[in-house]
Amino acid sequence: MDYRQYVISKAEKAKRASRVMATLSTDIKDKALLNMAKALRDNINDIVEANKRDLKNGEDRGVSKALLDRLMLNEKRIQEMAVGLEQVVSLADPVGESLRAFKTPNGLQINQIRVPLGVVGMIYEARPNVTVDAAALCIKSGNACVLRGGSEAINSNVKISEIISKAAEEAGLPEGTITLLDVTEREAANAMMRLNGYIDVLIPRGGAGLINAVVQNASIPVIETGVGNCHVFVDETADFKMAEDIIINGKTQRPAVCNAIENILVHEKIADNFLPLIKKALQDKGVELRGCEKTRAIIACEEARDEDWDTEYLDLIIAVKVVKDIDEAIEHIYNHGTKHSECIVTENYFNSQKFLREIDAAAVYVNASTRFTDGGQFGFGAEIGISTQKLHARGPMGLKELTSCKYIIYGEGQIR
Amino acid sequence: MDYRQYVISKAEKAKRASRVMATLSTDIKDKALLNMAKALRDNINDIVEANKRDLKNGEDRGVSKALLDRLMLNEKRIQEMAVGLEQVVSLADPVGESLRAFKTPNGLQINQIRVPLGVVGMIYEARPNVTVDAAALCIKSGNACVLRGGSEAINSNVKISEIISKAAEEAGLPEGTITLLDVTEREAANAMMRLNGYIDVLIPRGGAGLINAVVQNASIPVIETGVGNCHVFVDETADFKMAEDIIINGKTQRPAVCNAIENILVHEKIADNFLPLIKKALQDKGVELRGCEKTRAIIACEEARDEDWDTEYLDLIIAVKVVKDIDEAIEHIYNHGTKHSECIVTENYFNSQKFLREIDAAAVYVNASTRFTDGGQFGFGAEIGISTQKLHARGPMGLKELTSCKYIIYGEGQIR
Repeated sequence: MDYRQYVISKAEKAKRASRVMATLSTDIKDKALLNMAKALRDNINDIVEANKRDLKNGEDRGVSKALLDRLMLNEKRIQEMAVGLEQVVSLADPVGESLRAFKTPNGLQINQIRVPLGVVGMIYEARPNVTVDAAALCIKSGNACVLRGGSEAINSNVKISEIISKAAEEAGLPEGTITLLDVTEREAANAMMRLNGYIDVLIPRGGAGLINAVVQNASIPVIETGVGNCHVFVDETADFKMAEDIIINGKTQRPAVCNAIENILVHEKIADNFLPLIKKALQDKGVELRGCEKTRAIIACEEARDEDWDTEYLDLIIAVKVVKDIDEAIEHIYNHGTKHSECIVTENYFNSQKFLREIDAAAVYVNASTRFTDGGQFGFGAEIGISTQKLHARGPMGLKELTSCKYIIYGEGQIR
Repeated sequence: MDYRQYVISKAEKAKRASRVMATLSTDIKDKALLNMAKALRDNINDIVEANKRDLKNGEDRGVSKALLDRLMLNEKRIQEMAVGLEQVVSLADPVGESLRAFKTPNGLQINQIRVPLGVVGMIYEARPNVTVDAAALCIKSGNACVLRGGSEAINSNVKISEIISKAAEEAGLPEGTITLLDVTEREAANAMMRLNGYIDVLIPRGGAGLINAVVQNASIPVIETGVGNCHVFVDETADFKMAEDIIINGKTQRPAVCNAIENILVHEKIADNFLPLIKKALQDKGVELRGCEKTRAIIACEEARDEDWDTEYLDLIIAVKVVKDIDEAIEHIYNHGTKHSECIVTENYFNSQKFLREIDAAAVYVNASTRFTDGGQFGFGAEIGISTQKLHARGPMGLKELTSCKYIIYGEGQIR
């Protein structure tokens, strides 16, 4: 099979659709989203049926229970997908928003307005709800999308995309707006990464391996998402109860997500008093501690090895380091952080300002949990991922981050 | 020579510098820019001397007169470079600007602020003034830069970067802020394109060959610049004099730049009257016309072949096509344009709106010359290039386009 030709044939449809999508009114896009929600609800049994084939294949291949859980769809989860579509309807349409408008000395009226990106590519792993979420956000922001889900969810994804594509077309969206690559071979994904001229941006969602493969291989623009090796620095003046709450929340509320914390850095002047407290609190929640030498001189725990400082555990494990001062904390985060979310717990004004200024990350917190780095929590209504790169978008990406801009210029014959 | 190791050793210095640059006050950055301007003026003879070696090498290798002219530096051009530095001082510092600020229901204060990108890589061709312009814009926006100019300008670039680096450091900027790659082998540029973790964004400036090589080979984020196959569509209701002015200006004022026009599309209902007029006006300026079949039935001119519609001549040649209506014009631009700058000349309100809405380009003009697509003309004060991609920046890129953002969050113990 010629994967490149196959992927081009699919992407061409999306590209054609994107031209129409860019000029559709909000009303038509919203009508399509509502029709997609209805279609999901009307076809719950078919989706569950397809999903069962994926689950059976997964079991036969011996995949982990955690992965099977992410893969699994039941009525409740499908209803949630439908509700998600309805929520996107309630969000403001970003297309057409004026970003800057000004008049030049020679009388040109220049207006910079938001326009859709065009064709958004997504490469993602197990969870089939991404198929619906990504399609919804792309549609509302006037884009077409080319979706490539994981092989483990192929039956679910094909069924879902059939249902929502049909519903979208019935409501007036062009064919190809939601284009699923139904070929799960790696060659198809690789071809997709090099489809300059067809796909305007590629957003990978998944583990570090997937994201790195995309960054290394893609020739189309990529938005890196997700990897979060996040820290809480407990400063000398920290309120112990507040620090404990923020650490427990950051580590245990949902350990497998990118904005969970993986490390705590404790000021040496409070280490004797704070470490025993936080050890007990973490252990009560079943968290394993791995400490530096100074930590282990104060509390008994596993030894943190060099690689621990760079590990995104995504699990009930946390690395603990005693630092001399805020400068050592900032230096450690510079050397080991992934520029996702970082937190200082402090009562010292100057240290709060220093941390906010010197830490280079998508989200920098004073006295609040890193778990808030999330499109929903930020009030964006929905998110297509969390960018950890600096170009185009940084932090939670909502509808605005799925747009580009263009300058429209009204003249009356001006020349240079 | 291990090019990757060499390039890393250079880029590491820029990366260290970028940490300091990100937190420097505007005062210090401006002082450095003024000192750099002074140093250029104080060292005109040394620069001219180094430039003569480049010119001599170019002559020996038989490079074109046009290239030698782009390469040449004299006192006037060096003074212009110094003035350019002083103009950047007068521009507003984008760093720290608040993009959004809001409070969440649980009381978190979230502020999205502009921060520098970090390390900006530039790969460019002959003109040595880019070394100064790029350094100035990167410094003002709080970035460090890694510059890789063309081999034909290596002596000039090395001398200029020595002078301005020394001046910048004397004024308090960190060593490495202006890092020139003094190795001009292609392998060094290729290594630079894959320096993830060291360079945050790469901006190529030059011909289509250079830009395409960067897009295909880079693993770090790229901003595509420059290639402009721009059109003027002369609608049925166009004012002939206005259309002529805009076409002559777009084609002849400076033919070798990306916002010059390469094609005219003429509505068939006015072709009989308009084509003879524009033929004369263009020929008076020494422009060669290449026409479609319908054009050549009306005026005598060379034949436009298929490849002409996709050629950025950058020269006194223009392709002419007669179209049935605005839809055919839009379709032609969709198929052959490079999404740079496009213009309609019309008196019809609905057609002006349709063109603005349906043309997908960085700048879309009604009744004005495409030559205005320029940072200076738009009032941005300076530009580092014109982006023709949709991610991050589109159109003329000034200081704001050399920034990213971060969210800073003030909490009082909030958890999820």
